[in-house]
Amino acid sequence: MKNFVSIQDVGDPSALVKFAQKLKSNPYQLEELGRRKTLGLVFLNPSLRTRLSTQKAAYQLGMDVLVMNISQDGWTLETREGAVMNGTSQEHIKEAVPVIAQYCDIMGVRTFPSLTNKETDYAEKTLQAFINWSPVPIISLESATLHPLQSLADMLTIEEFKKVANPKIVLTWAPHPKALPQAVANSFLQWSKAMGHDIVVANPKGMDLSPAFSEGIEVIHDQNEALKDADFVYAKNWSSFTSYGEINTDNEDWILTPEKMAMTNQAQFMHCLPVRRNVVVSDAVLDGPNSLVIEQANNRTFAAQAVLAKILGYEG
Amino acid sequence: MKNFVSIQDVGDPSALVKFAQKLKSNPYQLEELGRRKTLGLVFLNPSLRTRLSTQKAAYQLGMDVLVMNISQDGWTLETREGAVMNGTSQEHIKEAVPVIAQYCDIMGVRTFPSLTNKETDYAEKTLQAFINWSPVPIISLESATLHPLQSLADMLTIEEFKKVANPKIVLTWAPHPKALPQAVANSFLQWSKAMGHDIVVANPKGMDLSPAFSEGIEVIHDQNEALKDADFVYAKNWSSFTSYGEINTDNEDWILTPEKMAMTNQAQFMHCLPVRRNVVVSDAVLDGPNSLVIEQANNRTFAAQAVLAKILGYEG
Amino acid sequence: MKNFVSIQDVGDPSALVKFAQKLKSNPYQLEELGRRKTLGLVFLNPSLRTRLSTQKAAYQLGMDVLVMNISQDGWTLETREGAVMNGTSQEHIKEAVPVIAQYCDIMGVRTFPSLTNKETDYAEKTLQAFINWSPVPIISLESATLHPLQSLADMLTIEEFKKVANPKIVLTWAPHPKALPQAVANSFLQWSKAMGHDIVVANPKGMDLSPAFSEGIEVIHDQNEALKDADFVYAKNWSSFTSYGEINTDNEDWILTPEKMAMTNQAQFMHCLPVRRNVVVSDAVLDGPNSLVIEQANNRTFAAQAVLAKILGYEG
Repeated sequence: MKNFVSIQDVGDPSALVKFAQKLKSNPYQLEELGRRKTLGLVFLNPSLRTRLSTQKAAYQLGMDVLVMNISQDGWTLETREGAVMNGTSQEHIKEAVPVIAQYCDIMGVRTFPSLTNKETDYAEKTLQAFINWSPVPIISLESATLHPLQSLADMLTIEEFKKVANPKIVLTWAPHPKALPQAVANSFLQWSKAMGHDIVVANPKGMDLSPAFSEGIEVIHDQNEALKDADFVYAKNWSSFTSYGEINTDNEDWILTPEKMAMTNQAQFMHCLPVRRNVVVSDAVLDGPNSLVIEQANNRTFAAQAVLAKILGYEG
Repeated sequence: MKNFVSIQDVGDPSALVKFAQKLKSNPYQLEELGRRKTLGLVFLNPSLRTRLSTQKAAYQLGMDVLVMNISQDGWTLETREGAVMNGTSQEHIKEAVPVIAQYCDIMGVRTFPSLTNKETDYAEKTLQAFINWSPVPIISLESATLHPLQSLADMLTIEEFKKVANPKIVLTWAPHPKALPQAVANSFLQWSKAMGHDIVVANPKGMDLSPAFSEGIEVIHDQNEALKDADFVYAKNWSSFTSYGEINTDNEDWILTPEKMAMTNQAQFMHCLPVRRNVVVSDAVLDGPNSLVIEQANNRTFAAQAVLAKILGYEG
Repeated sequence: MKNFVSIQDVGDPSALVKFAQKLKSNPYQLEELGRRKTLGLVFLNPSLRTRLSTQKAAYQLGMDVLVMNISQDGWTLETREGAVMNGTSQEHIKEAVPVIAQYCDIMGVRTFPSLTNKETDYAEKTLQAFINWSPVPIISLESATLHPLQSLADMLTIEEFKKVANPKIVLTWAPHPKALPQAVANSFLQWSKAMGHDIVVANPKGMDLSPAFSEGIEVIHDQNEALKDADFVYAKNWSSFTSYGEINTDNEDWILTPEKMAMTNQAQFMHCLPVRRNVVVSDAVLDGPNSLVIEQANNRTFAAQAVLAKILGYEG
């Protein structure tokens, strides 16, 4: 594996899920693999799970880690080609990326979307600049439109907790007071398709995801109908793709409550976290026995570890 | 030892002090104990000594360390049970704590008091939430009302520098321009009692600490009287417990000067740091030969190391 | 080597450059040297290259690293002798430095100039306080007037890329919209003199550097004239030394363009980064085949590693 920024970088997603599961069974089994190797983590945005689980994964492989909160501990990066840098940006990504790359063997980067410029966001301008200017492999720690480490952890979670061979999975939009990226949802669809999952999307009218990701997947605009017979319910807010970045405030009743969950086939509940309680989902669902959210977060470590190990050249 | 959040967690405080002293004599003697173990440090508030000494302690035990400045590098945590999270809080402590716990074997947390709500502060709501929701042991890096790592370091310092078997120790309030917690003072009283120290508290009228901590200890409202025959003078400001969080600005003459120290039995001077020079204590005292403040800070490493080693199961 | 804060600390600069080059050829050759040793990095100002390259260097020597962004994760330091600390400063450097020193074996510190008080800046008040109050060796991560780790990396870069025994090096002032320190330029002159380089300074009238550093070096106020026959062009902005801290906005044509570079002897281009593109230097120069800026940044790792190894007592 060269980079890990989308499912296109993964030859065999099922095998990668199995490998992550194998690492989970014995996290230090490859602790010599990363010896004398350094992971650089570059954050253009806040992070909790990704920050800690990816560090943990690196330690379990024996790697050293450098963490850079770039705008906080450093300065603002310029990304525009040909910019005359007489404003607030102090360093161009064309310098910053190859420079940081020289201090590490693998570089992770988190770069959220603007949610104001669809074209730029969906072209993944910043992530692509990192890829273009880095001589070392790039791992996405969530980019403008995708969050593949989250999806790999989600696929592992489904693998571990499914009760039937081909469970019905419903990805449902949920309410949220702020404009959120579409990245987790987009990525979840990519990976679910690649894994051959039986997946349905539920969202209010006008809140359809980009056809590039939902193509071939049934989209239902009635949440109750979609939840029928679900084995897994994955709740996630996203802001509008069509009216790009707009917050949908008309569907507060899309909150996942015990009543909604009662319509399912005793579905297990998933969310990538952080989650706003009693806005996205009720306390009773999150605190109930069918919630998998903590285990999903746990699996972030083994997702990251599998990716790092593969990039380090592990063939087993 | 399961957690380390107050002296109640410690079976034998004297033995723990002795163990810290033993580690200090050879800091790397247990460098294999923490192999493949990770310490997570969660800061809800600023930290210098605690941050660095606890990391150092972990390294000396061979542990890996994850540091999370949660509101700075992540987001604001919600702590209210049943909250409808449509405001600024982005993640509930009920998710954040078990999630972070999965990335480490021991979790440290720093959570300062509000100093506006006595009931909430003294119920240690945030610390208790960490304990409740964490599957791994919790170490207090200073909570709303206690700072046991500081006190353990203080007890070690007294042990090292005492010139008589049962020295007279005076904990004296000192002036300060901002509202400070009572945590260091509360904890110092708990530990001094447990160690069987001869301890006296000096503070202005109206500035008495919570009876839960001062019970059984003589409280003197005349600083000069209290200082007589002192072998150790521990200076520390705290805001009012009774008029909760109020700053006492009427007693600037409680500053510890050479004249004050001259009333003692050539007492050694202690303070937990950071200290405001020439407000809490004069330069001449801090820079004099009887100041122990730098050594106290040094002992923070061995206090943390002793606690980590015990939680990791060291029995020696 | 005791400290590393200026070239005065270096017995034989040429030998140190050679040693850095040797480390670069096999970065892990001394990976046992730093075992059980801790490097503390204290940042009073932002940092990218220095932060990451110095950590990397320490890891390659087997050291542990503590990073402290002091005003961000801790609090404001007081530096004035005798200050009555009833304002915003919460801790005096006389406590902070010896305390942090106890948690590490070598301490690095970054402390930028005020650019408002020449006397204080050029007395290196803060750096000197670190040296005075630290029982462990101090490494400058850029101080008010010098940046020796950068210069050591620059000397290594020149050593690697020079095509003639005694190349002509031009240090040229370049435009910049903000007031920048003179540190990189001062240091570069110190080191170039010590290495016996053929060096010329070009800057607009009124922008001369301190005579303490430029003494014995030809200063030319016509950039075109200075660039003639140059083998290396080192571009760098600095604010005025004479009208201390003033920004010079009258010389935007001092930007390094391909036309300017065409006047040289096919000179290789150097800059310490971060650089403002199309203000200090044109894209075409930075992206051209003669730019060494990325390699300079790479050499920061080996400069730091050489210094750490020498301070750790390596004699080879």
